[in-house]
Amino acid sequence: MRAARYYGKEDIRIEEIPEPKLGPGQIKIAPAFVGICGTDLHEYLGGPNFCPTKPHPVTKEQIPVTLGHEFSGTVKEVKEPSPFKIGDKVVVQPSIFCSECTACRGGAENVCHKSGFIGLSGGGGGLSDSVCVPADAVLKLPDNVPLDVGALVEPLSVAWHAVSASKAKSEHTALVLGGGPIGLAVVQCLVAKGVKKIIVSEIAKRRQEFAKEFGAHRVLNPRTDDVVKIVKAATGGAGADIVFDCAGLKASLDVACTAVKVRGSVVNVAIWEKEIMFQPNMLVFSEATYTAVLGYQRPDWVAVLDSLKRASGIMKPANMITRKIKLEDLVEKGILALTTDKDNQVKILVDIQG
Amino acid sequence: MRAARYYGKEDIRIEEIPEPKLGPGQIKIAPAFVGICGTDLHEYLGGPNFCPTKPHPVTKEQIPVTLGHEFSGTVKEVKEPSPFKIGDKVVVQPSIFCSECTACRGGAENVCHKSGFIGLSGGGGGLSDSVCVPADAVLKLPDNVPLDVGALVEPLSVAWHAVSASKAKSEHTALVLGGGPIGLAVVQCLVAKGVKKIIVSEIAKRRQEFAKEFGAHRVLNPRTDDVVKIVKAATGGAGADIVFDCAGLKASLDVACTAVKVRGSVVNVAIWEKEIMFQPNMLVFSEATYTAVLGYQRPDWVAVLDSLKRASGIMKPANMITRKIKLEDLVEKGILALTTDKDNQVKILVDIQG
Ligand SMILES: [Zn+2]
Ligand SMILES: [Zn+2]
Ligand SMILES: [Zn+2]
Ligand SMILES: [Zn+2]
Repeated sequence: MRAARYYGKEDIRIEEIPEPKLGPGQIKIAPAFVGICGTDLHEYLGGPNFCPTKPHPVTKEQIPVTLGHEFSGTVKEVKEPSPFKIGDKVVVQPSIFCSECTACRGGAENVCHKSGFIGLSGGGGGLSDSVCVPADAVLKLPDNVPLDVGALVEPLSVAWHAVSASKAKSEHTALVLGGGPIGLAVVQCLVAKGVKKIIVSEIAKRRQEFAKEFGAHRVLNPRTDDVVKIVKAATGGAGADIVFDCAGLKASLDVACTAVKVRGSVVNVAIWEKEIMFQPNMLVFSEATYTAVLGYQRPDWVAVLDSLKRASGIMKPANMITRKIKLEDLVEKGILALTTDKDNQVKILVDIQG
Repeated sequence: MRAARYYGKEDIRIEEIPEPKLGPGQIKIAPAFVGICGTDLHEYLGGPNFCPTKPHPVTKEQIPVTLGHEFSGTVKEVKEPSPFKIGDKVVVQPSIFCSECTACRGGAENVCHKSGFIGLSGGGGGLSDSVCVPADAVLKLPDNVPLDVGALVEPLSVAWHAVSASKAKSEHTALVLGGGPIGLAVVQCLVAKGVKKIIVSEIAKRRQEFAKEFGAHRVLNPRTDDVVKIVKAATGGAGADIVFDCAGLKASLDVACTAVKVRGSVVNVAIWEKEIMFQPNMLVFSEATYTAVLGYQRPDWVAVLDSLKRASGIMKPANMITRKIKLEDLVEKGILALTTDKDNQVKILVDIQG
């Protein structure tokens, strides 16, 4: 079968490998659509960062590994009895964790120090004709959700996890800093939760348009707009109830801490590339809370699938798909387009069977 | 009457001024004991920072102002009808705020941008023979609480506010970084709340001893102990449920973010002198929350007085009083001793009537 395998920096090969065999508790999936994300790009341009160069503590695998951690597919093989049957449309929650550490035992396996992802850490990946995954990592797609949208459940779950942590309520004003894929997914989840006032700050014109399409009520350009002033004016002087930092820059952190209302909440959804200068007094004088979130857990996936089912027509995740490519074009038209055509792309999907 | 008045940097004068007259809604207090704190020291050494050099937006006063914001006293004059009578032992919550801004209207007058304090911002102060204060700023001291301990209610309320924000529970492990007056007051409040495992990290030997006296179960020296490692070991590898940063240094912030457990809470009780280098990923990979708190509110004062009444013998606030001085000795034996004899002093009280 075909598989896109990561060997190291700037070295991804589409090659023929043996089809995997069902292990205990596994089911076999034929991937349909696979999203490409910033993590894939970083591995390609500057990795290996995430892909293991020595045996991963859980999967015991190391590079080369098959890529593709955001994917939908159809069930290809099961061991009876199984809640799934051949042909079921499904998505796969790619989380890998140790089950033993204090994080895992405390129900926070998303921050397990041995964590990883199917499609990055071994255990196969979506960018192949077949992948065997633990049956309990698989969730059925609702009938009204097509397979391409299924590939968006992973990034939407990241956003759902963040929005849940924020305790956003419908009467809140939420400010989203950064209109990249995660920022836009946060907007979608805020829309799904019925949040009435969503303000997005984003520099790139096309991403500003995406934010509007996806349900932002107001879109600002931090280069030309005084974001803090406008947010305060829009909230009777109070500031945003919740600010999502999806940019992870000193500038966004400063805006977040200044635009948030007294006792409001700043939720960090970004991974930071480096240390920055920070003045904690920015939080002190408003008694604000800074919460950091990472990844997702099963309930986030269940909630996203449920709201795709129920908020059909309200959430517009299909619009996040800006391009579909073939597996053979993964690097040129997929991964590299996330840099060369960054502002115009939200989610590029690989159509495995296309 | 006598009053200690702040004129500017290194210029505090004990002088005779006219006794204030009762304004509407006020009662007159004869201060008994007055605590000196870091704020007073900073005003003396490097101010004016906090004392107004132009009319304060609420008090309309500017320097010279009478000092003394942590004080107990006895009621000297009331306008009938009043819940207070002459001779009542009381404490004064010195908060000044505007009542009109979004913070005040939202019930967070402690972060009012026009806030101030009796004893710093005008409106008289405790370091005098008489002060007229709003009747609703006055609280009765429980019978079992002596006037000298009454002067500790202010710093204990700062700590209570922080401990309340932390949602500390008795089964929690709390790490307190810094054993200065606020860190030690946090220990007292944790003891009052029945927290079973309190670990303090402090460099100075005498302060380490104070921490033990006040109820810390374990005291570490960050110069010689690996605080993170010891805290993890003491919690089965998990880390502290709550970390209080009462030091406000890059080193303490880094320890706080590393020693806190997954989804634990770092509570900042410090005011920061400057920006520091910070890596938010420290919070991301444990999904921890960083909460900043400032000052106190009425319920904190009520709760401190209630627990002084009820936790008599459990809380040992009287031990925080390391020296009592006369008003005439305010600068030499009081304010300056907070630098020259820092490690041996927790709270120096001015005994006004002594
Ligand atoms: Zn991804
Ligand atoms: Zn684990
Ligand atoms: Zn003070
Ligand atoms: Zn106010």
